[in-house]
Amino acid sequence: MDLNIPVLGPAKIRSPLKLSTVIGDMVANFVLDDERVMYDISLKHYMECMENRQELPLSFERAGPREFIYFDPSKLHVGVVTCGGLCPGINNVIRSLVMELHYHYGVRKIHGFKFGFAGLIPDEGHDVVDLTPELVRGIHHEGGTVLGSSRGPQDVGEMVDCLDRMGIRLLFAIGGDGTQRGALAIHEEITRRELKISVIGIPKTIDNDIQLVEKTFGFETAFSIAIEAIRAAHVEASNAHNGVGLVRLMGRHSGYIAATAAMAEPDVNCVLIPEIPFELEGERGLIQWLEKRLQRRKHAVIVVAEGAGQDLLEHGTGGTDPSGNRSLGDIGLFLKHHINRALDEKGIKHTLKYIDPSYIIRSAPANPNDSLFCVTLAQNAAHAGMSGRTGMLVGLWNNVFTHVPMKEAVAKRKIVDPEGDLWRAVLESTGQPAKWS
Amino acid sequence: MDLNIPVLGPAKIRSPLKLSTVIGDMVANFVLDDERVMYDISLKHYMECMENRQELPLSFERAGPREFIYFDPSKLHVGVVTCGGLCPGINNVIRSLVMELHYHYGVRKIHGFKFGFAGLIPDEGHDVVDLTPELVRGIHHEGGTVLGSSRGPQDVGEMVDCLDRMGIRLLFAIGGDGTQRGALAIHEEITRRELKISVIGIPKTIDNDIQLVEKTFGFETAFSIAIEAIRAAHVEASNAHNGVGLVRLMGRHSGYIAATAAMAEPDVNCVLIPEIPFELEGERGLIQWLEKRLQRRKHAVIVVAEGAGQDLLEHGTGGTDPSGNRSLGDIGLFLKHHINRALDEKGIKHTLKYIDPSYIIRSAPANPNDSLFCVTLAQNAAHAGMSGRTGMLVGLWNNVFTHVPMKEAVAKRKIVDPEGDLWRAVLESTGQPAKWS
Amino acid sequence: MDLNIPVLGPAKIRSPLKLSTVIGDMVANFVLDDERVMYDISLKHYMECMENRQELPLSFERAGPREFIYFDPSKLHVGVVTCGGLCPGINNVIRSLVMELHYHYGVRKIHGFKFGFAGLIPDEGHDVVDLTPELVRGIHHEGGTVLGSSRGPQDVGEMVDCLDRMGIRLLFAIGGDGTQRGALAIHEEITRRELKISVIGIPKTIDNDIQLVEKTFGFETAFSIAIEAIRAAHVEASNAHNGVGLVRLMGRHSGYIAATAAMAEPDVNCVLIPEIPFELEGERGLIQWLEKRLQRRKHAVIVVAEGAGQDLLEHGTGGTDPSGNRSLGDIGLFLKHHINRALDEKGIKHTLKYIDPSYIIRSAPANPNDSLFCVTLAQNAAHAGMSGRTGMLVGLWNNVFTHVPMKEAVAKRKIVDPEGDLWRAVLESTGQPAKWS
Amino acid sequence: MDLNIPVLGPAKIRSPLKLSTVIGDMVANFVLDDERVMYDISLKHYMECMENRQELPLSFERAGPREFIYFDPSKLHVGVVTCGGLCPGINNVIRSLVMELHYHYGVRKIHGFKFGFAGLIPDEGHDVVDLTPELVRGIHHEGGTVLGSSRGPQDVGEMVDCLDRMGIRLLFAIGGDGTQRGALAIHEEITRRELKISVIGIPKTIDNDIQLVEKTFGFETAFSIAIEAIRAAHVEASNAHNGVGLVRLMGRHSGYIAATAAMAEPDVNCVLIPEIPFELEGERGLIQWLEKRLQRRKHAVIVVAEGAGQDLLEHGTGGTDPSGNRSLGDIGLFLKHHINRALDEKGIKHTLKYIDPSYIIRSAPANPNDSLFCVTLAQNAAHAGMSGRTGMLVGLWNNVFTHVPMKEAVAKRKIVDPEGDLWRAVLESTGQPAKWS
Repeated sequence: MDLNIPVLGPAKIRSPLKLSTVIGDMVANFVLDDERVMYDISLKHYMECMENRQELPLSFERAGPREFIYFDPSKLHVGVVTCGGLCPGINNVIRSLVMELHYHYGVRKIHGFKFGFAGLIPDEGHDVVDLTPELVRGIHHEGGTVLGSSRGPQDVGEMVDCLDRMGIRLLFAIGGDGTQRGALAIHEEITRRELKISVIGIPKTIDNDIQLVEKTFGFETAFSIAIEAIRAAHVEASNAHNGVGLVRLMGRHSGYIAATAAMAEPDVNCVLIPEIPFELEGERGLIQWLEKRLQRRKHAVIVVAEGAGQDLLEHGTGGTDPSGNRSLGDIGLFLKHHINRALDEKGIKHTLKYIDPSYIIRSAPANPNDSLFCVTLAQNAAHAGMSGRTGMLVGLWNNVFTHVPMKEAVAKRKIVDPEGDLWRAVLESTGQPAKWS
Repeated sequence: MDLNIPVLGPAKIRSPLKLSTVIGDMVANFVLDDERVMYDISLKHYMECMENRQELPLSFERAGPREFIYFDPSKLHVGVVTCGGLCPGINNVIRSLVMELHYHYGVRKIHGFKFGFAGLIPDEGHDVVDLTPELVRGIHHEGGTVLGSSRGPQDVGEMVDCLDRMGIRLLFAIGGDGTQRGALAIHEEITRRELKISVIGIPKTIDNDIQLVEKTFGFETAFSIAIEAIRAAHVEASNAHNGVGLVRLMGRHSGYIAATAAMAEPDVNCVLIPEIPFELEGERGLIQWLEKRLQRRKHAVIVVAEGAGQDLLEHGTGGTDPSGNRSLGDIGLFLKHHINRALDEKGIKHTLKYIDPSYIIRSAPANPNDSLFCVTLAQNAAHAGMSGRTGMLVGLWNNVFTHVPMKEAVAKRKIVDPEGDLWRAVLESTGQPAKWS
Repeated sequence: MDLNIPVLGPAKIRSPLKLSTVIGDMVANFVLDDERVMYDISLKHYMECMENRQELPLSFERAGPREFIYFDPSKLHVGVVTCGGLCPGINNVIRSLVMELHYHYGVRKIHGFKFGFAGLIPDEGHDVVDLTPELVRGIHHEGGTVLGSSRGPQDVGEMVDCLDRMGIRLLFAIGGDGTQRGALAIHEEITRRELKISVIGIPKTIDNDIQLVEKTFGFETAFSIAIEAIRAAHVEASNAHNGVGLVRLMGRHSGYIAATAAMAEPDVNCVLIPEIPFELEGERGLIQWLEKRLQRRKHAVIVVAEGAGQDLLEHGTGGTDPSGNRSLGDIGLFLKHHINRALDEKGIKHTLKYIDPSYIIRSAPANPNDSLFCVTLAQNAAHAGMSGRTGMLVGLWNNVFTHVPMKEAVAKRKIVDPEGDLWRAVLESTGQPAKWS
Repeated sequence: MDLNIPVLGPAKIRSPLKLSTVIGDMVANFVLDDERVMYDISLKHYMECMENRQELPLSFERAGPREFIYFDPSKLHVGVVTCGGLCPGINNVIRSLVMELHYHYGVRKIHGFKFGFAGLIPDEGHDVVDLTPELVRGIHHEGGTVLGSSRGPQDVGEMVDCLDRMGIRLLFAIGGDGTQRGALAIHEEITRRELKISVIGIPKTIDNDIQLVEKTFGFETAFSIAIEAIRAAHVEASNAHNGVGLVRLMGRHSGYIAATAAMAEPDVNCVLIPEIPFELEGERGLIQWLEKRLQRRKHAVIVVAEGAGQDLLEHGTGGTDPSGNRSLGDIGLFLKHHINRALDEKGIKHTLKYIDPSYIIRSAPANPNDSLFCVTLAQNAAHAGMSGRTGMLVGLWNNVFTHVPMKEAVAKRKIVDPEGDLWRAVLESTGQPAKWS
């Protein structure tokens, strides 16, 4: 894994930020270029490195403001684009980017492209928005994105033409896995053309599934709102005789939302996520488990991530959405019908209530902790861009903000480790079986 | 610094938890005793250790369930006590402790002491509560603590007498700095008497100021609710001509709540915390700054932590509260009066609105992320106690749950580093001066 | 219409309530039996009555505590049953009933039947719950009903047998139209058997559709939570190019929730309710309207009540649910598919997001105003029952709590008047057409 | 009492609103000028009128759109001013006024005066804001008022000069008792000068204390948020031994907020309001009551309205605020100190927590039901103004929107009737004594 960050060239301009290079003067400091945080922080890894006399363990560059920057703020044109599905916090990121670039660096030209990458394609006919402090001041109180969004890739050449034509030298691409692939393609085309345009990614995935990034914005807000659905499911289930509450949550490839929401509202009795296969029938299957649970407690609450149990569905829909995401079969509706039928066949009178809160979740404004996270994330993205770095996204690792090469970040998805701490805590909280077969 | 954890004796009983010792079987694993996480995770520290050929860098033991435990669950009597001021999440911790000990370890006797350490003193006459799953099932939806709380230390000998007399062999002490000092004293008296009683601390400080612990429960909920007060202050300030909104937040020694709340609701123009001295008068003083801000923008929002600017007050009240905390002078009211007078003297017509939301904050139920944190924290506390560890508290470091010796944790307070990342981000968000003199 | 209230017999026992019969002594007063509030409060109606020399205009008996009561509280056994779908506020009503009967009247035996009318049928095997102040103290913070609920009628004779056998002389039936019909049947069977058992209904319909009752509890909470879904739909719609947000809300026969929610969050562009027929096709149809709206504004938000446009569906499912409610076809999903197809056929690229928040709404706890309403409603229900009234429910009319004969209340449904003030205000708020054909 | 409404002249222009004059055509109707709603709706009052052969009982004109209007919308200049303390819902009212006037009547010039009546005084130097649909579209999600506010009267002549000079022919004055007095003075000066300018008041009092108006906007939001403080007080009180929670709520002259909040969160044990005198000492005094309550239940929650018990304070501050409101002594702090001292003197160890949430409450955005109310209120204000009515405010009576002459509305304050239904319900909910001496 190569965690080095591409740069456009040497940073020679003194940063306008009023920070210190002196430790002990009670003034916050610039970050040095050689400050790095270790990838593996276990003592065991340290000892292995020592033994192997490996030159250096894997580490990330720390994010933060640099004493010297690459771009001249007074001449710089910046672009911002938001792509993919909605996610709490996009407006917070936009607002903080604008505030940081405007007030601290003195950048005066920040252009917002409308409706995702489509906004860079002239034929789509979307306007460009001037992102000023006045415009963005209050947007963090609203969900969604003031720039609008869309799914799907666009022609890379046309997009780079657009940037070049508009004189944009620094592009912030706020989006998920697909967006970061798109941004990487733009970066590579820029490199091929030998242009001096920086592309900085800001990872936005409500599912929290970007590799090498510990936490993405919007994820906490998402599972926090999801617990409203879980509470509802629990009230419905426990207020009926043999009540079953079934909640479908987001999580196409990774079960983070389902897993964390189920622990945050610990009335959940079973969580199903894409990472852990499960069976419906048989002695250790879900139906048998549910039957026993109803016998013992007269109600049950089940949370299922949208990507769970895809092998049980007959082929999903077979298609893909405009972002290229494989269309998933609806495991929530499938389970609803299957459980109803299975319990009916066993003659168990019951009531099942099914809740799918997805759109209410993704369009919500960021909660305070996400808001805090977005502010710092955007500040660090601005710092990285101004320093001339490119082809990277801003991440978090072991609680430290880092620079992550786009190439490595999009190489695969981050998933819940079935043998790790999070999933173990879920099993202890729900009391569900570790294996279903 | 000695980060080794005391133990009562060898753990010889096989844990009843259904976890795996095999990596790769898709079943969550026990944590091994030699799993440790590094204290300093910078690459620089790694290189220094290498150079110095220092035997091993400083590291924390990882928290988590062990394959072998010390106590026989069927015979174990557990005690739980909650002390000090209210804090969101105490009930979540109690609930999860009880659920983990009852359902996973099979402990049947869990006693809750009422009203803090006073509940261990016979003369106070408080009842003991049986903490059963039925009793605790719904308590996490309510703020406060079902056990009640009180401030202040009690006679250590009497408390150990009480534990011994009741046959309690494992005590969980949920509380802040003072409580952990008390728990340490109990642990030391137990050690002196050569009793086999484990004392496990669960750090509870809404101010997030416990040394060697990255984050404490309730803190996020606290600054999240605090932003309601900040929003109110901003609306009041910006709806009046020369409006000033002044919000006093918690933070006796450490400004974490003020700093994070001000970033999470970024309409704050100035944050004052105990770690950063400030002047009122003079060219770089607060009043001058405020005057310029009003000239430029016609309104201002100021957040002040309760422990800030104590040097400006005439000696506070000079006393201490029952927990031994030094009574602070009220910097909020002081600033309110001082600013009003100073602006009046300068002939600046203005309106100042002062908000102190403290009690509304500390009595709230935990928000979802805090709730999630409390569940895992309590699980790990239960694991630590069952394994025979003692004189320790459960912490978080670089996002990993750890064991922290009480002795080291209470040695000093954690404070906001004026030269660190958090405070730098605050300065960038508010635009306030780095220094006031 | 006969608005007289049946009574079991003369009220001869002096009420234990410490109220006054004297006006002007600054102590709250008992309500007199001849206090009545007019049904039609227009001046025009007054003049018509005058002209016609009609003996008396139609009026309701006012609810409230009477100086003399019928039942001896010390000997009275009370029953409480909750039926039908969940609705915010049921627990508040139960709590206040118990508190009023226990603390103010001194009733010591209050039995809660589990799972609706089924709880009165021995063969169903449900336990009876002792409703004490301790049990109900905190229940108003949780949604649902501590008694559980179920749909569907039960054998009237068996239910009266049960009441008689248990010695219950006062039954509170909390439920909607179907429940009140059931309660009326119980009342009539009691009358036929010449038993002295009072049956008091407390109208519970989230749809607010009970005749002669201005407002039912839970309704305000329902439309208040519904606006979260509307906000989500608006964010989704306005963040996409040609975005359409479609929200399905409750309202089988009456569009109150849809109408009020759409005004409370006035970003709604069109509301469809059962009372107003609409067309899909044609020059004045919904599709044409939507097309124009998208041309003009690039997004649209539509709210549809579940009972709207049933004539457009192919026969619904033809069945009924256990409460005898006709099964409705799903107008929400129908519209989603129809709009998508129609816009696709016209070649209009668009994005439609569909939200159905029903279960999250109905299982929520009551909001403060509903909570306030539930307290007073339950107090007045207790007063009515203690006074020996029967076969009635407690209502609200022109903002005054009233007694309503069950017979009249269940005669038909209350619906939104297409020519009345509420619907006119909706039309002004949304700007939608008054007619669709 | 004279409930007739002044008019500027005959309404001769056909309204552009697409409403019907035909009953039965399923299209919402215009309101006729002779539609009136009775002031006293009791049957007793009806009978008295009959007996007295009184010509007509007292009645209000119904609000609503008229078929003919007075002003030509295309030429009309409208002014909007917001005065006094903040209150939830002001922005909702402004938004709906603008939307109604712009989209339905076609008015194109709507001017917003900044910072209250001061905005009409040239010397104050405040700008005038163009209130367009674009500007107001999202303001209802934020508390406060986009126009800003200020307290205090201004020179009436100068204000009328301003209106005349700017060509404003219709002024909406959103504010409380003082504002409506100011608006009445403006109306009277206009009448004296024989100008054709309509002045329409929209009553805004968070205390809900305007005579002849059943409910004012913001009031429900206020008591709804107040219950957060009550919950906090209850948690604090019940989590300490002999804990006392004391909450000060708004209510200078009228205890509506305190009374309703205490019922909506029924853990309150005692409510003190301006309308009911109370004693501190003596056998029936508050201290004695509190002592008994603590003996029995170990905690107590007290809610006090800011205007309660003013006779107990030594003369308040003797002054008035800029609006002419008498400065009240702080009964909350007084009670805090008095109770602490009194219990200390009796040797009762206790903990008292005092909460004053005022500014958090008044700066909040309107809750959904208030939002709904604001929409309809503003629509009706627009209708009244366009019809040429003047010197009136829009009210609500027996749940019907009405026109109320300013003169009658400001004649005295509305207060809680100590012998009425609301206060009786409070007494039943808290169980507190009806009298304190």
